Amino acid sequence: MRIGNVGGRASLIVDAGAIDIDRASGGKFPADMAGLFECWGDFIAWAREGRFETGAEAFDERSLGAPSPMPRQVFAVGLNYRDHALGEAGLKELPTSPLIFTKFPTCIAGPYDDLPLPVGNVDWEIELVAVIGTRASRVSVEDALDHVAGYAVGQDFSERLMQLSGGMPQFSLGKSFPGFGPFGPWLVTLDALDETNGLAVECTVNGVKVQGSDTSQLIFPVNDLVSRLSHVCTLLPGDVIFTGTPAGVGNARNPKWFLKPGDEVVSTIAQIGSIKQTCVADPCQ
Amino acid sequence: MRIGNVGGRASLIVDAGAIDIDRASGGKFPADMAGLFECWGDFIAWAREGRFETGAEAFDERSLGAPSPMPRQVFAVGLNYRDHALGEAGLKELPTSPLIFTKFPTCIAGPYDDLPLPVGNVDWEIELVAVIGTRASRVSVEDALDHVAGYAVGQDFSERLMQLSGGMPQFSLGKSFPGFGPFGPWLVTLDALDETNGLAVECTVNGVKVQGSDTSQLIFPVNDLVSRLSHVCTLLPGDVIFTGTPAGVGNARNPKWFLKPGDEVVSTIAQIGSIKQTCVADPCQ
Repeated sequence: MRIGNVGGRASLIVDAGAIDIDRASGGKFPADMAGLFECWGDFIAWAREGRFETGAEAFDERSLGAPSPMPRQVFAVGLNYRDHALGEAGLKELPTSPLIFTKFPTCIAGPYDDLPLPVGNVDWEIELVAVIGTRASRVSVEDALDHVAGYAVGQDFSERLMQLSGGMPQFSLGKSFPGFGPFGPWLVTLDALDETNGLAVECTVNGVKVQGSDTSQLIFPVNDLVSRLSHVCTLLPGDVIFTGTPAGVGNARNPKWFLKPGDEVVSTIAQIGSIKQTCVADPCQ
Repeated sequence: MRIGNVGGRASLIVDAGAIDIDRASGGKFPADMAGLFECWGDFIAWAREGRFETGAEAFDERSLGAPSPMPRQVFAVGLNYRDHALGEAGLKELPTSPLIFTKFPTCIAGPYDDLPLPVGNVDWEIELVAVIGTRASRVSVEDALDHVAGYAVGQDFSERLMQLSGGMPQFSLGKSFPGFGPFGPWLVTLDALDETNGLAVECTVNGVKVQGSDTSQLIFPVNDLVSRLSHVCTLLPGDVIFTGTPAGVGNARNPKWFLKPGDEVVSTIAQIGSIKQTCVADPCQ
């Protein structure tokens, strides 16, 4: 099952288009994604029954917003793919606990929104994004995925000068400019995914493949991340986890490669879909 | 002017007690703090007129919640007092840009809430807390304080093992256990403060003074922080900034000193007030 944010309205995404959840349920469920997350379990049970009062309508993909447009908490993980951590990031051994930072929520954007480029070195990082569906506190690895609403494709855009500056760099601010956290194009529920061999992850810039891996390479997979985070914080419906990026970022290349106005970044995860950002000059710079 | 969260209701705090803002305005303003921040400017103008339809009532200080109980963004600053940065934190020179991390919002707590101690080394960090009153994007240092609703006293409680673990430590998670971000006891608007000589900052543990400084020692003062943050993120009404702690944390002592069940931590900032946490054993450990 796919659930999307179509012009601000929570919608089931089917081949024929989008089914508006508020209208198809006769007002039983809220019209927006933030409201829907608060009754996620009931919503999923209703959606599985498939008795909709209204049908699907075609929609413009440019109207898609982030599936959780204003999450209360955004967790992001650094160095969570073997090749990225041991190779280009230069770690001598794999991390024994995940490196957790945040992307401040005002950076969240829709899956086709333009990316305004601030001054600096802006880089790509394709990531699998997990969204929490039900409150999670101290859940086991075995139970963790029961609290996940679904997966989406995300970009953890990063301005490297700010990210890596200072004697003790903190990642969050350099990864939180407006538009730096697009994800979508929709949520895919886990029962609709076959993860036997991981999910293939690929990022292209202007059609050139720059990152390619699959989610079986995650050092800390989603169930482990949810369990660990839930032993510190209370995870809330709609909370977002950016799970980390594989090798191939621009900052690790020789010569380095950063985004410039006009570039197109397409990020694809198998069985989920693609998101696309067109880089634009920041009008305020 | 002091504005507090009394049992979930936004209230003006006066010597005689609390004036309920919803009732005193005949329903013109929302009952809760999150709603009040959305109309902060109008609220302040109304409150200054002083025409209240209801009077003050006594209240139990234990019923006070955090003045912004579920902020959309929490910014925290590391190493922002000269003595803490150059002395006990061991930096060779002052930072040239602030070290920014987050405290995940589910750690926010009321000013008199108990502090459950997780396994580990839990330490104190008294901090001046600034709360945003009106949306701020790319504001100058000169205009920055116009966007601040007021100041409060906060504690950036920190579990040091998790905070400092890993090859590239990220501060956020070890500072985000439940109860690790208490602040209050209320917001004090800036016009009510005389900051000519800074505001005296003092933390005691079981009556023993462990931290003492004043806000004139901040390397990046509040106007500078708000301006810098607003050039990256959009600051939203109710967003919270923990501005950093002075010298005297337990982790830098010889021998080290960490909190244990029964300890009382009192944090006081002159002209604002005090908050107090009693440490309790975490019932789930």
